[in-house]
Amino acid sequence: MPIYKAPVEDVQFLLNDVFQIDRYDNLPGFSDASADVREAILGEAAKLSEEVLQPLNRVGDLEGCIRHDDGSVTTPKGFREAYRQVAEGGWLGLSAPTEYGGQGLPMTLSQSVTEFLSSANMAFSMYGGLTMGATAALLVHGSAEQKSTYVPKMVAGEWTGTMNLTEPQCGTDLGLIRTKAVKQGDGSYKISGTKIFISAGEHDLASNIIHLVLARIEGAPSGIKGISLFVVPKFLVNADGSLGQRNGVSCGSIEHKMGIHGNSTCVMNYDGATGWLVGGENKGMQAMFVMMNEARLGVGVQGLAQSEVAYQNAAAYARDRLQGRALSGPQEKDKPADPIIVHPDVRRTLLTIRAFNEAARAMVVWTSLKSDVAHRSSDPKDREAADDHMGLMTPVLKGYLTETGFANAVQAQQMYGGHGYIAEQGMEQFVRDARIAMIYEGANGIQALDLVGRKLPRDGGRAVMAFFGEVGSFAREHGGDEAMKPFVAPLSTALGHLQQATTWLMQNAMMKPDNAGAAATDYMHLFGLVTLGYMWAKMAKVAQDKIAGGGATAYLSTKLVTGRFFMERVLPATSTHLARIQSGSATIMELAADAF
Amino acid sequence: MPIYKAPVEDVQFLLNDVFQIDRYDNLPGFSDASADVREAILGEAAKLSEEVLQPLNRVGDLEGCIRHDDGSVTTPKGFREAYRQVAEGGWLGLSAPTEYGGQGLPMTLSQSVTEFLSSANMAFSMYGGLTMGATAALLVHGSAEQKSTYVPKMVAGEWTGTMNLTEPQCGTDLGLIRTKAVKQGDGSYKISGTKIFISAGEHDLASNIIHLVLARIEGAPSGIKGISLFVVPKFLVNADGSLGQRNGVSCGSIEHKMGIHGNSTCVMNYDGATGWLVGGENKGMQAMFVMMNEARLGVGVQGLAQSEVAYQNAAAYARDRLQGRALSGPQEKDKPADPIIVHPDVRRTLLTIRAFNEAARAMVVWTSLKSDVAHRSSDPKDREAADDHMGLMTPVLKGYLTETGFANAVQAQQMYGGHGYIAEQGMEQFVRDARIAMIYEGANGIQALDLVGRKLPRDGGRAVMAFFGEVGSFAREHGGDEAMKPFVAPLSTALGHLQQATTWLMQNAMMKPDNAGAAATDYMHLFGLVTLGYMWAKMAKVAQDKIAGGGATAYLSTKLVTGRFFMERVLPATSTHLARIQSGSATIMELAADAF
Repeated sequence: MPIYKAPVEDVQFLLNDVFQIDRYDNLPGFSDASADVREAILGEAAKLSEEVLQPLNRVGDLEGCIRHDDGSVTTPKGFREAYRQVAEGGWLGLSAPTEYGGQGLPMTLSQSVTEFLSSANMAFSMYGGLTMGATAALLVHGSAEQKSTYVPKMVAGEWTGTMNLTEPQCGTDLGLIRTKAVKQGDGSYKISGTKIFISAGEHDLASNIIHLVLARIEGAPSGIKGISLFVVPKFLVNADGSLGQRNGVSCGSIEHKMGIHGNSTCVMNYDGATGWLVGGENKGMQAMFVMMNEARLGVGVQGLAQSEVAYQNAAAYARDRLQGRALSGPQEKDKPADPIIVHPDVRRTLLTIRAFNEAARAMVVWTSLKSDVAHRSSDPKDREAADDHMGLMTPVLKGYLTETGFANAVQAQQMYGGHGYIAEQGMEQFVRDARIAMIYEGANGIQALDLVGRKLPRDGGRAVMAFFGEVGSFAREHGGDEAMKPFVAPLSTALGHLQQATTWLMQNAMMKPDNAGAAATDYMHLFGLVTLGYMWAKMAKVAQDKIAGGGATAYLSTKLVTGRFFMERVLPATSTHLARIQSGSATIMELAADAF
Repeated sequence: MPIYKAPVEDVQFLLNDVFQIDRYDNLPGFSDASADVREAILGEAAKLSEEVLQPLNRVGDLEGCIRHDDGSVTTPKGFREAYRQVAEGGWLGLSAPTEYGGQGLPMTLSQSVTEFLSSANMAFSMYGGLTMGATAALLVHGSAEQKSTYVPKMVAGEWTGTMNLTEPQCGTDLGLIRTKAVKQGDGSYKISGTKIFISAGEHDLASNIIHLVLARIEGAPSGIKGISLFVVPKFLVNADGSLGQRNGVSCGSIEHKMGIHGNSTCVMNYDGATGWLVGGENKGMQAMFVMMNEARLGVGVQGLAQSEVAYQNAAAYARDRLQGRALSGPQEKDKPADPIIVHPDVRRTLLTIRAFNEAARAMVVWTSLKSDVAHRSSDPKDREAADDHMGLMTPVLKGYLTETGFANAVQAQQMYGGHGYIAEQGMEQFVRDARIAMIYEGANGIQALDLVGRKLPRDGGRAVMAFFGEVGSFAREHGGDEAMKPFVAPLSTALGHLQQATTWLMQNAMMKPDNAGAAATDYMHLFGLVTLGYMWAKMAKVAQDKIAGGGATAYLSTKLVTGRFFMERVLPATSTHLARIQSGSATIMELAADAF
């Protein structure tokens, strides 16, 4: 039976020491999230995750969701009760606006909670995660009436939400959407079509499900410019807020998939369902992007979350499993063998995962903080800079964290030898669950293209230049500090590689976009590595200062060793990514399609 | 429904042109494998794989194996009939000695057949694969009577074989084995204990199952020096070869595992079962190593095989799936979108997989040819050199090919977007099936340690020096050839990295074995990369010569592009592995076990 312990101390170190969020007390909601409140919330979230959600993770995988002949769907045993606890605990509204029943606390805090829930039970946490994404889109683009009708119930966890984008013939290319919307006399629309891969599309956790649906209004322009967003509730809502008649939307089937069996992935049939436009006609993509950006951050966190829980189990197993002897001679002579954690290759594997987890967590906190600034600051300059950062980091966070998180889950499974392949141990579930995060909310190749093709050149490269400036300043400021050399020197080298790659793209990809496409994935990895390297350097500086100030703890000294490992063993990969990028696209584009 | 087409042309190119196996006509069995015979056999193997085995791959995954209350096991629908066809076609005895009913053909040929079968249906192919491994151990270490009793039936496919090593408390560390053997008056032994993870341990494909079992004879020395190997048939065999009474061995349960559901992975209970010693008392490990080396090559081939079939499907999907437009402008204006193969990132992914597959296949053929020389040559010098090569390459082939093969299956799945996560498409099965190859027959970390700790220093580094000599000579010989520069220059750089890493190990790991342990996995990857780079350079030379000789074909020009891709995009990773190796073990060993 897998274990999970929420990394509360690590989150506290990031919030309190590394990013010092108390400095942001001027932002709405931040003063409500004092150190004491944060500690209490993280402690309660840990308890919920460890005691309620984690024990349901394997049940969810084994049972999956069942669609009945009437189209209703039953979630795995225990999910209903757990969802009730999540709703009643106010967890869905942690950083939702107070006027809709939320607590208005920083996203910086709620993303940490999201990590805990997702480590404990990824499939379960998606029901709430999608609801929060749908809420965000309604808050930004919905009418006053739509907000007051749907948002309070969703924040309270009484109703859940979904995103309906994909159709059999279109995933990435939403311009190919065929689901159609026909305007009615009363201003509503009749929606007809089939959507696939709809997470949480139908279930028994809530009394109503609020579908946000991309569709094409009759006569709209073809392609992406003719797509509109609609809100389509499972049950129509009466004027007094009570549930009215069943709408013409139903679950046609549940997909059989590799993992996240506890989440119902549905084919949804819209058969003249009543819906209402969210935002303007043919402006669906803008509205959907709000949801997608929210969701992409959440998916990046899922990559981290599965890597974290897989690590914890692998480390415990490595301390426990007796097999062979240390290369340097027996360590535990009274036992039949040494625990496998004596082996350098086992430690290398564990440290590779851990060094990612801790820096990825820092990156999530950093980016969430920027999100809060972008949404809550009264200073337009601050908002702009924070928004630049968000735009730049979102594809990196989604792509790099999910790809590495999956690879880490695989390596953690590897620590178990043959036992890792057996379902009862739970390690193979982490691998299967983590796999989807590389795919949904824009497959990672799309994230890489978004980074290279859109985010990098935007506003003359303002965002990336600000990032280079910040990392470069840090390196200059601390370059002379002897204790920081093991961090600053490799970071400077890696930053140099990223800058060279960026220059190469500027010189070679403007005229020849295939060079950007051929570089995209390596550039995303290179960017992720440099970002995590910067996170490590920042964390090391804070840890060293605390130790120098007499605050030495086992936590801080382990932090410094883990950071040095990252600099020595992980960060050097930047040179390979640079070499690949600089090799260009000629060879890649040479073969005809039928030669593949 | 996944597709599969056996890469016959590619195998022919390797056998006929690159390794010119007709030059080995002096070895027993090789003259029987003339070009015509090879073509016929590969053609028939392709047909069997494509038409019989591949259609059963998903059935096997869905149905799995079922254990009944009486301990009997039913394999998935269609497996019995398919196994009968494999047996009757003589496929299990392709390179087995003619005196035991085999065809005595080169292993070089039968390994290619193994790849086809494993691509088509990995779980199914294991029943035969394990039988061949058990046969090999009996042929080397069995008595004349044991050979004549068991081998002909196993070669004919009437009986199958298994390897019984693992117990709950011991996987890698076989010195911890508790299964005991008590000598009886008639020279037989009573075997008692529990073995786990026994592939093909019980099934309905054959009338008898010949278990090879590691156990400890009462009073034997503790640890690895007290392990003996026994042959324990499911049914005792009468003097006339007919089946006698049921032996005291039975399947206690079938493991629920991540993949290869079509193969029955059993807990086997030995309850005073009758067995006979194979080889000498307490010499079980030597006998088992014959089986394991055979099996490790086969497992490396599984890594390649899953990568190949995953590639074929991903390439077909990429040619077919319409989504978005080329970065350089629409390619197929009459269609609603371009096929995704227009995208550089899709091509990069496909070429990464393909460039591995073709070079890995070359490495398998090269190593199999050395195996044939080691077993069949009359010249002791040739045998020694070939055996050196085998010893050195076996861990690289097992570790690097399975790790990269798995990563490739994941990337091939990624090409499908959300559809890749859905079971019906079959892509996620390739990932789940391929995953086990990184684990069994010695987890890849153990392969890396075997390479660095045993194979590298053996005989004063004779094997690795021979390898460096061969690759270095090739580079010198063709360094002046302008057309070969895109291959020779990167190969020389990569070889330099491997030589630096080897020197570093010689200087730093002798006195401090943790430095070897910390370097092992990166060294194995570095070795694999250089080997595949050498394979590409050899293939490029042959392709260029054939083209220059007027034999240009589409196959050959695609080969050269794929090879250049490898040199530009894959091989540069050697520098990162070198940097990691040279960072040593100090940071890795610094933390106490409980800090993890």
